[in-house]
Amino acid sequence: MSKLRNDTFIRALLRQPTDYTPIWIMRQAGRYLPEYNQTRARAGDFLSLCKNPDLATEVTLQPLARFPLDAAILFSDILTIPDAMGLGLYFAPNEGPKFERPLREEWEIRALTAPDPVEHLGYVIDAVSQIRRALDNSVPLIGFSGSPFTLACYMIEGEGGTDFATTKKMLYQRPDLLHHILAVNTRAVTDYLNAQIEAGAQAIMLFDTWGGALSHNAYHSFSLPYMQQIVAGLTRKREGADIPIIVFTKGGGNWLESMSAIGCDALGLDWSMDIGEARQRVGQRVALQGNLDPAILLTDPDTVFAETAGILASYGSGHGHVFNLGHGVSQFTPPENVAALVEAVHNLSPAYHAAR
Amino acid sequence: MSKLRNDTFIRALLRQPTDYTPIWIMRQAGRYLPEYNQTRARAGDFLSLCKNPDLATEVTLQPLARFPLDAAILFSDILTIPDAMGLGLYFAPNEGPKFERPLREEWEIRALTAPDPVEHLGYVIDAVSQIRRALDNSVPLIGFSGSPFTLACYMIEGEGGTDFATTKKMLYQRPDLLHHILAVNTRAVTDYLNAQIEAGAQAIMLFDTWGGALSHNAYHSFSLPYMQQIVAGLTRKREGADIPIIVFTKGGGNWLESMSAIGCDALGLDWSMDIGEARQRVGQRVALQGNLDPAILLTDPDTVFAETAGILASYGSGHGHVFNLGHGVSQFTPPENVAALVEAVHNLSPAYHAAR
Repeated sequence: MSKLRNDTFIRALLRQPTDYTPIWIMRQAGRYLPEYNQTRARAGDFLSLCKNPDLATEVTLQPLARFPLDAAILFSDILTIPDAMGLGLYFAPNEGPKFERPLREEWEIRALTAPDPVEHLGYVIDAVSQIRRALDNSVPLIGFSGSPFTLACYMIEGEGGTDFATTKKMLYQRPDLLHHILAVNTRAVTDYLNAQIEAGAQAIMLFDTWGGALSHNAYHSFSLPYMQQIVAGLTRKREGADIPIIVFTKGGGNWLESMSAIGCDALGLDWSMDIGEARQRVGQRVALQGNLDPAILLTDPDTVFAETAGILASYGSGHGHVFNLGHGVSQFTPPENVAALVEAVHNLSPAYHAAR
Repeated sequence: MSKLRNDTFIRALLRQPTDYTPIWIMRQAGRYLPEYNQTRARAGDFLSLCKNPDLATEVTLQPLARFPLDAAILFSDILTIPDAMGLGLYFAPNEGPKFERPLREEWEIRALTAPDPVEHLGYVIDAVSQIRRALDNSVPLIGFSGSPFTLACYMIEGEGGTDFATTKKMLYQRPDLLHHILAVNTRAVTDYLNAQIEAGAQAIMLFDTWGGALSHNAYHSFSLPYMQQIVAGLTRKREGADIPIIVFTKGGGNWLESMSAIGCDALGLDWSMDIGEARQRVGQRVALQGNLDPAILLTDPDTVFAETAGILASYGSGHGHVFNLGHGVSQFTPPENVAALVEAVHNLSPAYHAAR
């Protein structure tokens, strides 16, 4: 494979010099784009879209045709792994993802095994290969997975966004069972991400959507160590190119120091943190990705411009910043506000990268 | 009024020496208690219970009859103020609080005025007087209110727990309108809390339930300064006794330093923080209240004991700690676990208060 024409995103994650701050947007291929909704309608539903490599490739590329983004991200879902484990992922209309068969009995937990990614998640691996070919080395492709703890929450609760009472009861009363699930998930995520890298993913992001629901001690026992194991188990160089890893715990602002020490290249930040303060706290250990409040994209181009300028100024001079939102883009976002965001980052950021 | 027989809670908030760590529990009068559910059934519904001073007194005292708690908290709701402003508070079955007439038009916002607490919220003030008489100086009574920003979220969205898209759009596009609402709320909360103090409340807690949904800059412009104004406007001494003030922003762990500088006596902590680290960050400026994950009360007495011991050990030797949960107690909590928690705090904590 030949050299990337735009490697700004990769270089920023590795804290190497760049001419400007690269930008991509969590959930950039999604419901705020009319062309996405058309493709999804053709697929039938969200899960069919994920499982069709042709259509997944199509929607992955849609935002890049509209906006000069500096990276593409595989179109998929964080719950493909538990689905491949046999839990039965489905999406009820206007609700989040759910599982038909959440883990209820100890024997079900003991019987859990890590799926072979090529055999059981071939549709994802095929999509990665196909997207890489379609991108033709224009910008890098990000592969991703949910974190072991976040996957476990869905596997135990059967859905997300709750108070995780069942998961936490297990955590405190049967930590052995939860550790077993997490160990299987860690094996599964490591294999899955290495298969994505093998198929062509050029950077990796781990989404720990629910780690922020834990106490300090529980996070450091049940979420972070498993992400550390994954980071240690991933292919970090392929065909001479570094494969950087981004770790994102939503609501994890209290724990940036320990997160920055697990061997990843960058941390994702939600919008609650001041990114300049976060940079001081993590020092030279990692790059930072973030952190505009997605609600700002519901306003207007002038407001988007002003708030984007504020985040760039807070990060300040120097390298190691990848611009992004602090969470996925809302389906109600006017696409022109995304255009304004990308333009603002590309126009304002070179001043912070000038030789000092 | 004569002297409190148990002033441990007040002394801890003022960072004065105590023999042990006092404890109370957010939502201690609530649905996990069968006697509460009986009284509520007699009242008809939650709002009727809040508006009946006799029954509000009865349920306020119920947890104190079961457990040797170190404080009582007024049984009420944080949304009494917007209800008194005419927005029409109601509770749909199995849903959170909602308003019939959320703020939609600029003229509605401009017409908003702070209600006179005695005239429009007399049922709360009467409840405070009645509870004080019923407590007969056994333990102190905590009065409370929602923060101006948290009230504004409900007033604008018409409900809680959303992504606050409408509130945030206003914040970024019409900050003048949001500041107007917040200024009126600040006047209303200050008057309301001073009326509670006048009627006998011996400590005050400000609940900023949704401030943690804001970005760093937005929190420091739209939530914290208004809480600072309230703290500055409250009666801080009555009949020779100090009235301490606790400020609690759920999800505000990133901002403890600035929160500790607004003139309050104590900060509430959610369960995501390590309380020992939080203590180092705020130094001698404030006492800390917290911070057991309420999910731990869903387990069993042994687990509750072990986790409680961990928090006491993390806070360590010295005064200025009020034990509490990091959020309200779950309705599914077995009361025997609350008994185990209170016993654990009272039995384990004296070791941390011994003369050094």
